[in-house]
Amino acid sequence: MAENKGLTPRGEDFNAWYNDVVLEAELADYSPVRGSMVIRPWGYGIWENMQKGLDGLFRDTGHENAYFPLLIPMSFIEKEKEHVEGFAPELAVVTHAGGKELEEHLAIRPTSETIIYHMYARWVQSYRDLPILMNQWCNVMRWELRTRLFLRTAEFLWQEGHTAHATAQEAEAEALQMLNVYRRFMEEWVAMPPVTGMKSESERFAGAVRSHSCEALMQDNRALQAGTSHFLGQNFARQFDLKFQSEAGQEEYAWNTSWGVSTRLIGGMVLTHGDDVGIVVPPRLAPVQGVVVPIWRKEEEAVAVREKSDEVAARLKKTGVRVKVDGRGHLTPGAKFWEWERKGVPLRVEIGPKDLAKEQVVLVRRVTSGEEPRKEFLPEAQAVAEMPGRLEAFQGALLQAARDRREANSHRGITDFGQLQEIMDGPGGFVYTGWSGDPAVEERVKAETKATLRVIPDPEFRSATAPTRCIGGGDAKMEVVWAKAY
Amino acid sequence: MAENKGLTPRGEDFNAWYNDVVLEAELADYSPVRGSMVIRPWGYGIWENMQKGLDGLFRDTGHENAYFPLLIPMSFIEKEKEHVEGFAPELAVVTHAGGKELEEHLAIRPTSETIIYHMYARWVQSYRDLPILMNQWCNVMRWELRTRLFLRTAEFLWQEGHTAHATAQEAEAEALQMLNVYRRFMEEWVAMPPVTGMKSESERFAGAVRSHSCEALMQDNRALQAGTSHFLGQNFARQFDLKFQSEAGQEEYAWNTSWGVSTRLIGGMVLTHGDDVGIVVPPRLAPVQGVVVPIWRKEEEAVAVREKSDEVAARLKKTGVRVKVDGRGHLTPGAKFWEWERKGVPLRVEIGPKDLAKEQVVLVRRVTSGEEPRKEFLPEAQAVAEMPGRLEAFQGALLQAARDRREANSHRGITDFGQLQEIMDGPGGFVYTGWSGDPAVEERVKAETKATLRVIPDPEFRSATAPTRCIGGGDAKMEVVWAKAY
Repeated sequence: MAENKGLTPRGEDFNAWYNDVVLEAELADYSPVRGSMVIRPWGYGIWENMQKGLDGLFRDTGHENAYFPLLIPMSFIEKEKEHVEGFAPELAVVTHAGGKELEEHLAIRPTSETIIYHMYARWVQSYRDLPILMNQWCNVMRWELRTRLFLRTAEFLWQEGHTAHATAQEAEAEALQMLNVYRRFMEEWVAMPPVTGMKSESERFAGAVRSHSCEALMQDNRALQAGTSHFLGQNFARQFDLKFQSEAGQEEYAWNTSWGVSTRLIGGMVLTHGDDVGIVVPPRLAPVQGVVVPIWRKEEEAVAVREKSDEVAARLKKTGVRVKVDGRGHLTPGAKFWEWERKGVPLRVEIGPKDLAKEQVVLVRRVTSGEEPRKEFLPEAQAVAEMPGRLEAFQGALLQAARDRREANSHRGITDFGQLQEIMDGPGGFVYTGWSGDPAVEERVKAETKATLRVIPDPEFRSATAPTRCIGGGDAKMEVVWAKAY
Repeated sequence: MAENKGLTPRGEDFNAWYNDVVLEAELADYSPVRGSMVIRPWGYGIWENMQKGLDGLFRDTGHENAYFPLLIPMSFIEKEKEHVEGFAPELAVVTHAGGKELEEHLAIRPTSETIIYHMYARWVQSYRDLPILMNQWCNVMRWELRTRLFLRTAEFLWQEGHTAHATAQEAEAEALQMLNVYRRFMEEWVAMPPVTGMKSESERFAGAVRSHSCEALMQDNRALQAGTSHFLGQNFARQFDLKFQSEAGQEEYAWNTSWGVSTRLIGGMVLTHGDDVGIVVPPRLAPVQGVVVPIWRKEEEAVAVREKSDEVAARLKKTGVRVKVDGRGHLTPGAKFWEWERKGVPLRVEIGPKDLAKEQVVLVRRVTSGEEPRKEFLPEAQAVAEMPGRLEAFQGALLQAARDRREANSHRGITDFGQLQEIMDGPGGFVYTGWSGDPAVEERVKAETKATLRVIPDPEFRSATAPTRCIGGGDAKMEVVWAKAY
């Protein structure tokens, strides 16, 4: 393995720290293909756990998985006017295949609304065929100029849900339901509590009527758009002739939604919980939740501590904990500790010759909220029995810390443009202000502070007192959240 | 949903039957992109169960999942001489992206040896970094001229395992181990027992030293290459500079293997078990193992039979059975029976008003081996308790039937070319003969009978008496298996 180069401290250069930690935790690596990355087993294992969690929530809400083609005829993408404007500049295009130039060029999907609604149109005749509630897990491609591991890559993995409904109300309810599924997943699994709300027109998905978003605040006080859910109205249904016969016998266009989250969530996890030692993986996402490290000096001690380590690991496995014994002989215990801390394993169990005699183990937390000790000596049986509960507590503490940080860096009741500017020039964070609804204000804020309108927050995120003044002057029509964004 | 067009009987036109049944069972549909198909939820659910089964076997043998880029620089594919000859004619090429022509054109991966071994070369320094045992689940693209749903599509889903080892012996053992993992999966999950063996030089993977294959015999007596495992020697390691420092301090090239199975397995499942009614899904692969159909005539009966159906389903779920209640009000029971039989659900439970009174259910098998009745009246408690065992028996009966059929259509001890010709012109099947090892014999067999050399069978598949005469005349060096193939 590559020599440890050490991590740039966050306080010195946050962006450099992020790149270092993603590489050094072996989450991902650069590839020889511009803008594409390799997701290494540790990163992919986290993604698999994300998939499991999300997939369960999708199924519980009645969705089925399917798979649609990677390549989309250019004519399809060109059908929805806003859609092609939004995606055309980022397309990767297959012009030749099988040794010949193709009659119609094919785009690698940047998202699959067009081809999916084309297929739905073949499958739907009557209202009885609705709703269609499908999701696909796949790769997509958007030719981005500036790329960052996980946060913005030309190719990324994601899921895209696509639904068709008989009524606008049902589709709108679906879009909101899935926004809340995302929010719940980000809170309960990623321990990354987002603010949810609606996008302004300028930030809307290309082709949507309304876009809803989960915006999470990273440690550097920049916002990460971590998941979006769109009410597409009948825009795509009209272009792809997705019609059905209603119960009353009328021919009507269906109403669509689409919603997606991607491997960007892994970047969000790193930016939410990581520290100068490495990443921190929330237990529900950790491929290894507890690592058992046998410690020995003399060769004659090795057998006993390794056996005990295997035994403890087997007992932990029975309690449902994902556990790994690191028995490598050519590394010092210190090197192992360092590696697993860098990779963010929540709990470490150390077992040495002295612990054997005392029937105890040493339990070390990857991070502590300050209330618990980082390191504890515990009777072996107690450590095993308490492990699932400790992992849950660890998960909860991460969420609480992230929520506290978000709130501490949310600035409410800002009415003065200079104040907004000052915050954005200084610490950053979420700034709540009034807004008239005028796009010119968004343009001015962006030009002068680099912040963008993240969301028009959902009711529970709004300030107790509704703002009356727009940050750009004049009356406010609504409250909005500004932040610099990834 | 589209009107039922009925299935072409197998005896009338086997190929037409296959296309009909794949479409009518809603496994897949044609897409507007030439050679690409849509995998519908029922087909994708079967694929997900295949993934679960295989993934467990891969993990049990020490493999980890990762993800590598979709696009591969053309220069990479051109590095390994045989590899480029094998794959160049089938490549789909991205020439433009982000609105510009690319300096280096990029191929959509037809397989990922090149880019993966390039990455391994970055990660491996010493023998301590070996073996690397990785697998990826992904889509690949091969621009085929003649395509068939699942069996041969331009885009398909698969897994590709790629390993690197310090010694040739270890790599060869890995290639054989994975061949056996595939065999076991095909037997125990797909109930499609393959013959395993080695490919002749002419049928070898482009770039491999040795290719091992699982060849299964379909109902029309054609062979399906259902999974392959390759010992790559140092061919790719040399081209991609995949070197390591040995324990003795020498710089050496690593030894590689690669192995893959794809959504083609779904086609194999259909061609192995399907009948004129529809497909038959082995219980271990079935998204729904038991469907419960409440039956009522009068509206006042509906509530009670639906309640009972939900109750029975809940009890079945507790025994670990994947179960679904089909309570749709606008379809007759007959229409539901027909739909689920077409989709191959192994067992059906019918519950009507008379059954309620008797505390019984009607249990119907999708297929029967002839020893059991197709339809039974059973006390409700017994039906629930016996369901897991009955599903296991169903799975076992499918395997036995497929094995019997394979053996009944295997022709051993054939020494005369005319006989081979007669079998291939007639019933088809696996024909075992001697072979001198001369490729000219393969060419003659192919030209005159359309059969190809499927494998040089592994020991346990060889005939009791080794053949002494080559089918093309002269002495035999080995026994081989011929068949017409998909």
